[in-house]
Amino acid sequence: MTHVDELLLDDITLGSAILGSGGGGDPYIGLLLARSAIQSHGAVQLTPLNCVPDDALVAFIASIGAPGVLIEKLPRTEDAVDALAMLSHHLRQDITHLCPIEAGGLNAVIPFGPAAIMGLPVIDADGMGRAFPGLDMVTPTLNGGTSTPMAFADEHGNRSLLLTETNAWSETLGRVSTVASGCTQFFASYPMTGRQAKQWLIDAPLSRAARLGRIVRSARAEHRSPVDAVLAQEGGIRLLDGKVVSVERRNEGGFTLGEAVIEGTGAHAGSTLRLKFQNEYLIAERDGRAVGTTPDILATLEIETGEPIMAEDIRYGYRVATIGLPCDDRWRTTDGIELVGPRRFGYDVDYRPVEGGARE
Amino acid sequence: MTHVDELLLDDITLGSAILGSGGGGDPYIGLLLARSAIQSHGAVQLTPLNCVPDDALVAFIASIGAPGVLIEKLPRTEDAVDALAMLSHHLRQDITHLCPIEAGGLNAVIPFGPAAIMGLPVIDADGMGRAFPGLDMVTPTLNGGTSTPMAFADEHGNRSLLLTETNAWSETLGRVSTVASGCTQFFASYPMTGRQAKQWLIDAPLSRAARLGRIVRSARAEHRSPVDAVLAQEGGIRLLDGKVVSVERRNEGGFTLGEAVIEGTGAHAGSTLRLKFQNEYLIAERDGRAVGTTPDILATLEIETGEPIMAEDIRYGYRVATIGLPCDDRWRTTDGIELVGPRRFGYDVDYRPVEGGARE
Repeated sequence: MTHVDELLLDDITLGSAILGSGGGGDPYIGLLLARSAIQSHGAVQLTPLNCVPDDALVAFIASIGAPGVLIEKLPRTEDAVDALAMLSHHLRQDITHLCPIEAGGLNAVIPFGPAAIMGLPVIDADGMGRAFPGLDMVTPTLNGGTSTPMAFADEHGNRSLLLTETNAWSETLGRVSTVASGCTQFFASYPMTGRQAKQWLIDAPLSRAARLGRIVRSARAEHRSPVDAVLAQEGGIRLLDGKVVSVERRNEGGFTLGEAVIEGTGAHAGSTLRLKFQNEYLIAERDGRAVGTTPDILATLEIETGEPIMAEDIRYGYRVATIGLPCDDRWRTTDGIELVGPRRFGYDVDYRPVEGGARE
Repeated sequence: MTHVDELLLDDITLGSAILGSGGGGDPYIGLLLARSAIQSHGAVQLTPLNCVPDDALVAFIASIGAPGVLIEKLPRTEDAVDALAMLSHHLRQDITHLCPIEAGGLNAVIPFGPAAIMGLPVIDADGMGRAFPGLDMVTPTLNGGTSTPMAFADEHGNRSLLLTETNAWSETLGRVSTVASGCTQFFASYPMTGRQAKQWLIDAPLSRAARLGRIVRSARAEHRSPVDAVLAQEGGIRLLDGKVVSVERRNEGGFTLGEAVIEGTGAHAGSTLRLKFQNEYLIAERDGRAVGTTPDILATLEIETGEPIMAEDIRYGYRVATIGLPCDDRWRTTDGIELVGPRRFGYDVDYRPVEGGARE
């Protein structure tokens, strides 16, 4: 067991921005909420996945909505507590453990706020190992786990509960309700037993995020390259060092869609990387060839500081390194590729593991 | 107590189409559903409002959606039963009495289906005394009654439950969920005690509908004018007899919006009536002056048969009488006019009781 204090929270926040593959919402907003709750209510226990009792009642607690809106309206952690209460009321059972739905971006740290208030532990596990734009895009879906009952709480005091026939329906209905509520809500979902959590979830992504955060911070302090440090630690692939020369971005149906073009510098001079995003960076195309594809993690780091740059923030002039980090093996199965591979997002490209594709 | 059999159901259906003010959905679809449930499960008890016990648990059960869609996809009464079960599950209490939310159109008879299946009585009361396009536009809203918890069931097997801060939020969130679900759902709403029902609801609108239906049917059988018979019985105002010469209609946000133009014939030759609708007929403007305004009921009847013509069906060539019937007195208060008067629908016209306005 680890107690998550403010320092560890800082590391997780930085690391989860890298695991977010450019999406998942600004984790610093999650940090503000979690820090404030921990200051008021004390540190939160981080429980390893294998220590969760079989009969625990586990739920994901997360935010849903347009990342840009969160920056303008800081959500209230009490709404996350209300979403969990609504889920418990329907189940007629207390939730015993909170878990992030995704270890990438904002939602990696969101559970720490309600966990501090409710005195519940957070599990070092998640349903993505990164960030994805759909609430059905989680490893429980691969295992037949159901997303509902799923409870929502918006900033206006509205609460709702869904029971859907498929996890894709939860995404559809949850999304329209979020847009109608002003583009941001908290939701508590995928209630599962401890036994199911141990079978279904990705293990230790918060530890991975914390390690990534620590590595970047140490490299900065010691004036080493944070990008090199991350690659050495994570077995990642350097896809391109360069300068952002153009960005095309639009908002559609609550998603941030577009493409950034990066011109290579140094060893990559003469090469061009096109980074396509739908909230997350999903496809990296170097000189016309896909060298990184979803579900692998495509992080774009500011080259000097290692600071991850989100798809909603990337702009002309940034000097960046785009790196590929392998996704969890569960995403590399046929079912995994069908749920979160390139064609799921409308790209006419086959998935190729980033370790292989980049070296060909 | 009355037992509602198929004959009485026929009368209520015809009369509720008149009370629908041109909207509320085709009541013959509700009739098909109710008739089928009554054939399988037996007649339904119609309970007078003043006979409902104070400690009863009353709920509205109704359909929501684009009326046109219902014609193409007949809803399943079992989904209405599921919506009620979802509401009961949340309340942890059995619903004892069902009630129509509106006595106009389809929803007047919708409760008889689930009532037959569940063996529950239907109350001779409603929340509108007519039909309105918004689920917040009910007399409980005038009395501080809350629309939620409100449970929805769609044809795909999805269920949802809302707890909103205002009844207007229920309308907003219920509407987007309905559009996303394919434009039709059942919903169970406004749970209230018997004591509240007796204070809040409009009394005996189903009896009024049955009476209207009987009058039209008798007049037809006896070769008298059904329009004259309705006016004599209900104290209504004849606004114009004429021929429909043009109709402009569009679908917007799940609503049927537009205007029909009727040129007077006989005693009304030379006059023109513009009938403006948003699902329901809301404004009747004769020769440039508003002679009938929401919340009064503006029914348009085929002149020979007295058959009510809905806003979604009215078209060039129909020979019609447009009549005004007074709404319930509760709608004529300041709060009532604010909730369902002309300005609520964006018309820059003051409400004037149809008995007065037409005679000036």
